[in-house]
Amino acid sequence: MIRAAVIGAAGYTGGELIRLLLRHPNVGQAGLTAVSTSSAGRRIGEVHPDLSGSTDLRCTDHHGEPDVVFLCLGHGQSSRWLAENTLAAHVRVVDLSTDHRDLTANPGWTYGLPEKYRQAIRGSSRVANPGCFATAIELALLPLAETGLLTGDVVVHAITGSTGAGAQPSETTHYAWRESNVSTYKTFAHQHEAEIRQVLGDVRLHFVPLRGPFTRGIHATSVIPGMHDLQQAISAITTRYAEEPYVHVVSNEPAMKAVVNTNNCHIGLTGSNGTLCIVSCIDNLLKGASGQAVQNMNLMFGFDETAGLNLKASVY
Amino acid sequence: MIRAAVIGAAGYTGGELIRLLLRHPNVGQAGLTAVSTSSAGRRIGEVHPDLSGSTDLRCTDHHGEPDVVFLCLGHGQSSRWLAENTLAAHVRVVDLSTDHRDLTANPGWTYGLPEKYRQAIRGSSRVANPGCFATAIELALLPLAETGLLTGDVVVHAITGSTGAGAQPSETTHYAWRESNVSTYKTFAHQHEAEIRQVLGDVRLHFVPLRGPFTRGIHATSVIPGMHDLQQAISAITTRYAEEPYVHVVSNEPAMKAVVNTNNCHIGLTGSNGTLCIVSCIDNLLKGASGQAVQNMNLMFGFDETAGLNLKASVY
Amino acid sequence: MIRAAVIGAAGYTGGELIRLLLRHPNVGQAGLTAVSTSSAGRRIGEVHPDLSGSTDLRCTDHHGEPDVVFLCLGHGQSSRWLAENTLAAHVRVVDLSTDHRDLTANPGWTYGLPEKYRQAIRGSSRVANPGCFATAIELALLPLAETGLLTGDVVVHAITGSTGAGAQPSETTHYAWRESNVSTYKTFAHQHEAEIRQVLGDVRLHFVPLRGPFTRGIHATSVIPGMHDLQQAISAITTRYAEEPYVHVVSNEPAMKAVVNTNNCHIGLTGSNGTLCIVSCIDNLLKGASGQAVQNMNLMFGFDETAGLNLKASVY
Amino acid sequence: MIRAAVIGAAGYTGGELIRLLLRHPNVGQAGLTAVSTSSAGRRIGEVHPDLSGSTDLRCTDHHGEPDVVFLCLGHGQSSRWLAENTLAAHVRVVDLSTDHRDLTANPGWTYGLPEKYRQAIRGSSRVANPGCFATAIELALLPLAETGLLTGDVVVHAITGSTGAGAQPSETTHYAWRESNVSTYKTFAHQHEAEIRQVLGDVRLHFVPLRGPFTRGIHATSVIPGMHDLQQAISAITTRYAEEPYVHVVSNEPAMKAVVNTNNCHIGLTGSNGTLCIVSCIDNLLKGASGQAVQNMNLMFGFDETAGLNLKASVY
Repeated sequence: MIRAAVIGAAGYTGGELIRLLLRHPNVGQAGLTAVSTSSAGRRIGEVHPDLSGSTDLRCTDHHGEPDVVFLCLGHGQSSRWLAENTLAAHVRVVDLSTDHRDLTANPGWTYGLPEKYRQAIRGSSRVANPGCFATAIELALLPLAETGLLTGDVVVHAITGSTGAGAQPSETTHYAWRESNVSTYKTFAHQHEAEIRQVLGDVRLHFVPLRGPFTRGIHATSVIPGMHDLQQAISAITTRYAEEPYVHVVSNEPAMKAVVNTNNCHIGLTGSNGTLCIVSCIDNLLKGASGQAVQNMNLMFGFDETAGLNLKASVY
Repeated sequence: MIRAAVIGAAGYTGGELIRLLLRHPNVGQAGLTAVSTSSAGRRIGEVHPDLSGSTDLRCTDHHGEPDVVFLCLGHGQSSRWLAENTLAAHVRVVDLSTDHRDLTANPGWTYGLPEKYRQAIRGSSRVANPGCFATAIELALLPLAETGLLTGDVVVHAITGSTGAGAQPSETTHYAWRESNVSTYKTFAHQHEAEIRQVLGDVRLHFVPLRGPFTRGIHATSVIPGMHDLQQAISAITTRYAEEPYVHVVSNEPAMKAVVNTNNCHIGLTGSNGTLCIVSCIDNLLKGASGQAVQNMNLMFGFDETAGLNLKASVY
Repeated sequence: MIRAAVIGAAGYTGGELIRLLLRHPNVGQAGLTAVSTSSAGRRIGEVHPDLSGSTDLRCTDHHGEPDVVFLCLGHGQSSRWLAENTLAAHVRVVDLSTDHRDLTANPGWTYGLPEKYRQAIRGSSRVANPGCFATAIELALLPLAETGLLTGDVVVHAITGSTGAGAQPSETTHYAWRESNVSTYKTFAHQHEAEIRQVLGDVRLHFVPLRGPFTRGIHATSVIPGMHDLQQAISAITTRYAEEPYVHVVSNEPAMKAVVNTNNCHIGLTGSNGTLCIVSCIDNLLKGASGQAVQNMNLMFGFDETAGLNLKASVY
Repeated sequence: MIRAAVIGAAGYTGGELIRLLLRHPNVGQAGLTAVSTSSAGRRIGEVHPDLSGSTDLRCTDHHGEPDVVFLCLGHGQSSRWLAENTLAAHVRVVDLSTDHRDLTANPGWTYGLPEKYRQAIRGSSRVANPGCFATAIELALLPLAETGLLTGDVVVHAITGSTGAGAQPSETTHYAWRESNVSTYKTFAHQHEAEIRQVLGDVRLHFVPLRGPFTRGIHATSVIPGMHDLQQAISAITTRYAEEPYVHVVSNEPAMKAVVNTNNCHIGLTGSNGTLCIVSCIDNLLKGASGQAVQNMNLMFGFDETAGLNLKASVY
């Protein structure tokens, strides 16, 4: 059993981590510290009403003496938190913000995509957890990048749920705006492009992010027009993920909701006339954030990689 | 470890049972038989895409030699199934249909509401699992009925998600109809009234069922105008559920989504000028169907009552 | 043709009025002034993107010289606006806030429910537009109150869309909160009860307001247990509205979405064993606010009562 | 005033035409015949509940003696209807199905995209109304095709509401499936590709259709990587539509809901590093079907092109 501190326990990713770690066989309520400056002293069940009656854990304003710290803070605040708090030498850190994903600027950090960096994560004490869009796109394209097949244009459209924008209200997470609505935003200018290129190399990526009328999930389509050997590409992807616990190439066109409330990434492949379409679906809060963070923790501590992540999908 | 057969594995409640039992510490994939005449031979992951890649279980057309049978069939079909299939003497049955809920007509059966019939369920081999509306309404009113406080009019409005209507398409589960829509149906004439009266006794119930624009969940409000001693009523409810694992009286007006994808029932209480309003919220497929069925199985077999039911809420 | 000024043109009810008055045969773009302090100088199409490209009207910070002023301001701000602005003697005012609905405290004002006060509205220069919940509930119960049939308990549950809470973001209009969610709020304590009693008289009303997962619409169910002569009650309601242009008793259980984006109120009636259930559905922003405001303007100026209100429902 | 017959009045596009033509200044209830074999004899308000109380029109099984016939039948059934029914020589036909969109196979027919074929439509008695996806994509790309700028790869992702699939229930229009879900379908193989190529010429189109969790609307993004002179392309599009009544280039990234329940197409343009993204949004039932059909009727009969189409958006 280890002790885990979730810094920023009142937000979406913090809340998901609380839910996961409370049920984690190596953490549980006894090992969990929920840190929130805004909600210090409040019961978890008041902050996250689904936990009402199920636990008497309270938020606190200090992280105690943890073995692992999860930083669920706004971008820019993670590095400030690390600067302002002294951690014992053995403490491991998983940062869910963008602050440490640029590995050139942050020596000593590992990028927390287990499907590519599993061994490095196992030996690391500082993991920069990938962005949600980045996870979905990297998992779609990784096998092609690794096999040298990603040389042409790649046009990615990825649509995300409202929780991707965080708990702070804004115009586009207002119910009257978002309900039954779709829009692009930050076209060709999303901040995740940098970490995608860091993982995939120099790819001719054209990325259009979209907001969708749902709370959880990312559905990404990566279209590659110049893929002359479709069978080779499909085979590269299928083979690459055959043994992965959370990345599954499915036989039909995947539906996003099948992965919601799970740590899975479902991948679908369709090719025609030298053009390949790769669909990749994740839950932005789980495989795209807190679920992947727990997967990284499991690797860092030598636990079963799937511990605490065998989640029942909500499906309907 | 026991062996469980889910009859009707392709439907909503069958699918939920598969999800729960696959992860149940006393069942798991090795103990699970998924019976579906329409989908016999197909992989579970094709029938329920969220399980694609996570299990290689297949549907079959025969129930094998189970220790427990879950009947997830349409109303009327459960009794026919039992008539047409011979079960070994030790086999226990949980019927999720309405077929055996009338206990006068079905001697030997127990009504599967653990909060009232826990002891009887422990000793029973035939459990009629309660209806979803019935569960929400009975849990709201049970403590008042038991303490003789349910003598006046009780007006119940309960709004349900589309999965309450089953997987078969119909006009009112069509997306274009249901999206952002609300309507009453079977006003004062819902089939669950009978089982509610069987549990609560002769109550002056006026029940308006409603269809709501969501997939999972029931939100019920029971308004009782002639409740002169509000404090006594509130105290009766709060005390009654203090030790229940899945019924929680919450301190504010509960939001339905907090219980979705869990086995919980959240109850909220508001009184004013001799009128009491009791809100009760459940997930219609879990506490209102498959979750309660597993809770009953746990009781019948002497397992921990909460085994396999410590579910992560989807929340957002 | 008259000139109309909409004060608070950037909000929901202001926006709806702009949309209606731009197409109104007696107003149109030439007669319309859109007043917004926050958006003064901006094109209407920037503030309300559906109008982008369809009009070059701009918001302004002064109301000019109107014949009618619509006050679409927050509660409390309407009376302040009237105190701070001098209007010519002939100018008529329709106030959509609660500020002037208490007629005892506001002599000279008329309550703008055309179905009851049509003649008074025709002769009035100051109309307090009813609240959205109040409109739905009053239209359900008015015929019974007028015929002396409203003597027993009336339990009302009314569920509203997110636009009822205004454009200002809040926790419960956040998409992640509201999507697929239902909750009560202000149980037995909603501010519209006062105006309902003013219209209906001393009624034993028990009103539970609910928030629903949709943007537009109110679905209200009024349950009256002690209605011994059901046929008389049903007949009173049906007869009362036979000639009304916007209140229609429908033959089946009405679906809320049928009235969305129209000025209609649909009423459905079900009785059984001395209990009556009246369903009433409106669009909270139209019959519950801006549509009714235009209907009142039409009456005040002697226009065809339905001018500019023959709206295509969105339906699906 | 003319007489119009809507064949297939019980479906989605038939219902929308009824709503539009009832309010059309040159048709109205007196000129309207609603033909439905399945609903013959029923009141329109029973078939389309939003019209309950607003009209006493009834469905019939014969089209009478119309001046214009709208065919709102399933694909394949329109040509059969024309073969089985004799129309007077002066009768004009607008076919909303795919049956006559292939102009090579259907001499005498005109493709009903007013923005390109306005003059031809004016002189035509047979108009094949464009498909919904086709309309959105053609309007996005037409100016580039006409100016010779459409020579490279064009990757189109277009997400549609459930009404695009028709009123007949299916797995993917089931509420429990569609709610909060996204999926591709018919990737690179959608039947609208043929008519798009007919309008745009030989374009290297890679089209991924998607199903979205909403009822009305199409949001299409057309990404063109090799657009070296972005300013020229943007200028070509902006100039081309400057005078169009229903196609508006908006200044920011358009939100789909702004065009829902209107006949508008909103276009947004973003370019970066030689890649152009064109967003085009329509209501699939209006500009993508029945609204465009009325626009075509207006042109065919010499009415004001916008008659009956100045619709209030639902917006929220």
